[in-house]
Amino acid sequence: MANNIFYAQSGGVTAVINATACGVIEAARKERKLGKVIAGRNGIIGALSEELIDTSQESKKTIAGLRYTPSGAFGSCRYKLKSIEESRAEYERLVEVFEAHDIGYFLYNGGGDSQDTAHKVSQISAEMGFPITCIGIPKTVDNDLPLTDNCPGFGSVAKFVAVSTLEAGLDVASMAETSTKVFVLEVMGRHAGWIAAAAGLAKDERNSPPHIILFPEVAFDTRKFLRKVKDTVDRVGYCVIVASEGAQYKDGTFVADAGIKDAFGHTQLGGVAPSLVDFIKQQHGYKCHWSVADYLQRAARHIASATDVEQAYAVGRAAVEFAAAGKNAVMPIIIRQKGDRYRWKIGEAPLENVANVERKMPRSYISKDGYGISSRCRNYLSPLIGGEDFPPFKNGLPVYVRPKNKLLRKKLPVFEVQ
Amino acid sequence: MANNIFYAQSGGVTAVINATACGVIEAARKERKLGKVIAGRNGIIGALSEELIDTSQESKKTIAGLRYTPSGAFGSCRYKLKSIEESRAEYERLVEVFEAHDIGYFLYNGGGDSQDTAHKVSQISAEMGFPITCIGIPKTVDNDLPLTDNCPGFGSVAKFVAVSTLEAGLDVASMAETSTKVFVLEVMGRHAGWIAAAAGLAKDERNSPPHIILFPEVAFDTRKFLRKVKDTVDRVGYCVIVASEGAQYKDGTFVADAGIKDAFGHTQLGGVAPSLVDFIKQQHGYKCHWSVADYLQRAARHIASATDVEQAYAVGRAAVEFAAAGKNAVMPIIIRQKGDRYRWKIGEAPLENVANVERKMPRSYISKDGYGISSRCRNYLSPLIGGEDFPPFKNGLPVYVRPKNKLLRKKLPVFEVQ
Repeated sequence: MANNIFYAQSGGVTAVINATACGVIEAARKERKLGKVIAGRNGIIGALSEELIDTSQESKKTIAGLRYTPSGAFGSCRYKLKSIEESRAEYERLVEVFEAHDIGYFLYNGGGDSQDTAHKVSQISAEMGFPITCIGIPKTVDNDLPLTDNCPGFGSVAKFVAVSTLEAGLDVASMAETSTKVFVLEVMGRHAGWIAAAAGLAKDERNSPPHIILFPEVAFDTRKFLRKVKDTVDRVGYCVIVASEGAQYKDGTFVADAGIKDAFGHTQLGGVAPSLVDFIKQQHGYKCHWSVADYLQRAARHIASATDVEQAYAVGRAAVEFAAAGKNAVMPIIIRQKGDRYRWKIGEAPLENVANVERKMPRSYISKDGYGISSRCRNYLSPLIGGEDFPPFKNGLPVYVRPKNKLLRKKLPVFEVQ
Repeated sequence: MANNIFYAQSGGVTAVINATACGVIEAARKERKLGKVIAGRNGIIGALSEELIDTSQESKKTIAGLRYTPSGAFGSCRYKLKSIEESRAEYERLVEVFEAHDIGYFLYNGGGDSQDTAHKVSQISAEMGFPITCIGIPKTVDNDLPLTDNCPGFGSVAKFVAVSTLEAGLDVASMAETSTKVFVLEVMGRHAGWIAAAAGLAKDERNSPPHIILFPEVAFDTRKFLRKVKDTVDRVGYCVIVASEGAQYKDGTFVADAGIKDAFGHTQLGGVAPSLVDFIKQQHGYKCHWSVADYLQRAARHIASATDVEQAYAVGRAAVEFAAAGKNAVMPIIIRQKGDRYRWKIGEAPLENVANVERKMPRSYISKDGYGISSRCRNYLSPLIGGEDFPPFKNGLPVYVRPKNKLLRKKLPVFEVQ
C-alpha cells in the first residue's frame, strides 16, 4: 500500500523550515493510516537519485529538536523541474521512485517554483496511473507567495533585521558626533522589499533609525538619495540606511552592480551596501560603515519569531492532515483573522492558484517619498515578528540537532540527475 | 566638596558598556561619601566642552535598564588626548571643568588609550593642586588590554560570532550540494584576532565549520589559502571561512585592500570578505556568499553573554568602590581563578602598567596550520560566552532604554575642542 510520505525541502533554507519538518513528522507519526515520512536528501534531487532518508530511524527527541534547529536538516537544493514536455523523464523517474518505495504522498516545502512542481507531479502521476497526492507547504524568506497571509521563514528574518537595525542604530547614534555618520545594512530580497521593509519596525519616532529604506519596488535615484542622506545627517546627526540587495535603477540595473569592480575589471557580485557607501563618500565625504547580513539573517534561529515558528510548525502539521483527509494539489495557507489582536488560522489554497505567482509589496505599504514604510505596512508586519522562542543553550551556544539521515536501500537503477 | 564623579565612555561602543555605566551609577548612589555621577556627553569631549549629563535626573528604572541596553547611552567618541606637553591646554581645561562642577573622581571607560589618558589626568591634576582620583574601567571588543583575564564587551561579540558561525554553517551545509560552496564571514579585529578566534567555538568536530579562520597574527598566503579552500570543499563538500578584518600579508598590507577598486580606481575600504571571494571565484569558480557583520556584532545585545554582562557591571561597581576607598590611578581587572569550572573575581592593576600595552593572541592559541584555534584557546574563550541574558521584549523587539541626558548648566567660558 502506497501510504508513505515523501517530504522535501526546497530552495533557500530558513530559520524555521525544520520546524515545518517537525510538524510534518510529528503529525504523520500520529496518523495511523499514513506510513513513514521519507525525506529527500538534498530535496527533490534525493527523489531523482533515490537518496531517501528514513526519518523513522530518528528519535522522538531529534524530531522535536528540529523545531528549534535552523537550516535544512535533510538538505535542500535549487533545482527546478521544467514543464512536463521538457522534463518528462524526470517526472516519470519521480513517480517510479515513489512507486518503488510505496510513497503515495508528496509534501513539497518551498516557494513558488516548488508549488508549481508539486502541482505538475499531481497531474502527471495521475496520467501515469499511479496517482500521488501532492501537498505544497509554503516556505520562503522572500514572503512572495500569494494567498497566504505570510510565508513561514519570513517572520524570523524580519525579526532579525528589525532587531539588528534597532541595535546598530543605537550604536551609530552614540558615536556619530566624532565618528561614523552613515551606516548601511544590506539585506536579502532580490525581487521584493518585504525584508527591507521589516527594518522599518525599528523606527519608533520621526528621527529614529532607519532613516532610509531602499526597496526593489522603488526606482533608485542617486541624486535624490544623496540629498536625503545629507538632509538626514544635517537634521539628526547621522543616517541609518537599510538596503534591499535588489535595489535597482529605473532601467532594472541593480545598484549592487554600479560601482565596484574587481582587480580584473569585472563587476563584483553582491554588495549594494559598499556601492552606496562609495556614492556617499564621493559626494559627501562622511565616514561610513556597512554590513551585509547575508546568511546570518535567514539562519538566525536564536532570534526567531515565535509566531513564525508556530506557523511553520502548523503548516507542516496541516499538510499531513490534508493528505490524510484525501485532499490533493493544495497548500495550507495562513489566514489572518479580523480584529485588533493578531489571530490566525490555517486555510487552504489550490496549487494552481499559487504556482508561479509572485506577490510584491503593495505601493500602499511604502511611504510617499519611497524611503520608508506606511502605517498599513507596519500593522501588517508587526505581529509577524511577535514573540521569542529561544533554542536551548549549552556552554553559551544553541544546541541544534543533527539527524542521522540514514538512507533507505536503493531499489532502482541509477538515474543521471542533470 | 569635590565628591562628584565624572564618568565617560570612550571609543567604539559595545553591547555591555552601558551595563558598566549601570554598575557605576547604582554603586555610586549607594555610597554616602560620593556625590552624583556626571556623565560626559559624547565621552571626554563632554568634559572639554562642559556638556555634562546629570545622571541623578534619571529614574532608578532607567538606570537599571542600562544593564540590558547596547551602545553608549551618554555618547562616546574617538578622541585621544596627546602627551601633556602637546595637549597641556586640554588637560588644564579638564581639571578646570572638574573643579567648577565639584568633580573629584574621574572614571574613564575604554581601551588602552583611555587608560593612558586617565593615568595622565591623575598626574597633571595633582601637579595643578586639584588632585583628581582617576580610575580606569576596561572596555573593548578587541580584548587587547593586558593584565585582565578579558575585556568587557568582548565576550558578547565572541558569542554573536560563534552563534552566527554555527547557524550560517548549518545553512551552507544544507545547500552545498547544488548551491553555495564557500561562505565567508568578516568580523572585527584590526590588530588582534580574538574576535575571529571566537568563531572557532562553533566547531565541534574535525569537519564542522569554521574550516578556516584568518587572523591578523598569521601572514596571509594566497596560494596556501586557496589550496586549503579546495581541500576543504573536496573533503567536506563546502567551506566556511571566518576572516578578521585585519587579515594581512607578510608585508603588513591588508587583504581587504587587495582586490576591489571602485569605479574611480580607488581602493575600496573594508571588505576582506569580498576580496577573498574574488580570489576563490577566480581560482576555483565556486559559488560563494559573504557577510560583513560590522556593527551588528558589537551591538547585538539580544545575544549578549551573561558572563560578559556580569563582568561589565562588576568592573563599573568596583571602580566606584575603588574611588570610595581612596585608590587612585588603578583599573579593576578580571582575575580568572584556578580550577575546572570558570570562576572569576575582581582585582586591580596600576594604570601605568595598562596604558598603551596591546595584548595579542599568543601563538599557542592558534593551531599549527594557522587556520584554527588550539584547545588552549578554546579553554580560554569558552567560558567568556557562557550564559544568556536576554533583554525584555515587547511587540517582538527588545525594549532598550534611552536616558533623558539632561545637561548641567555651564559655568565656564566656551572652549574650542580641536
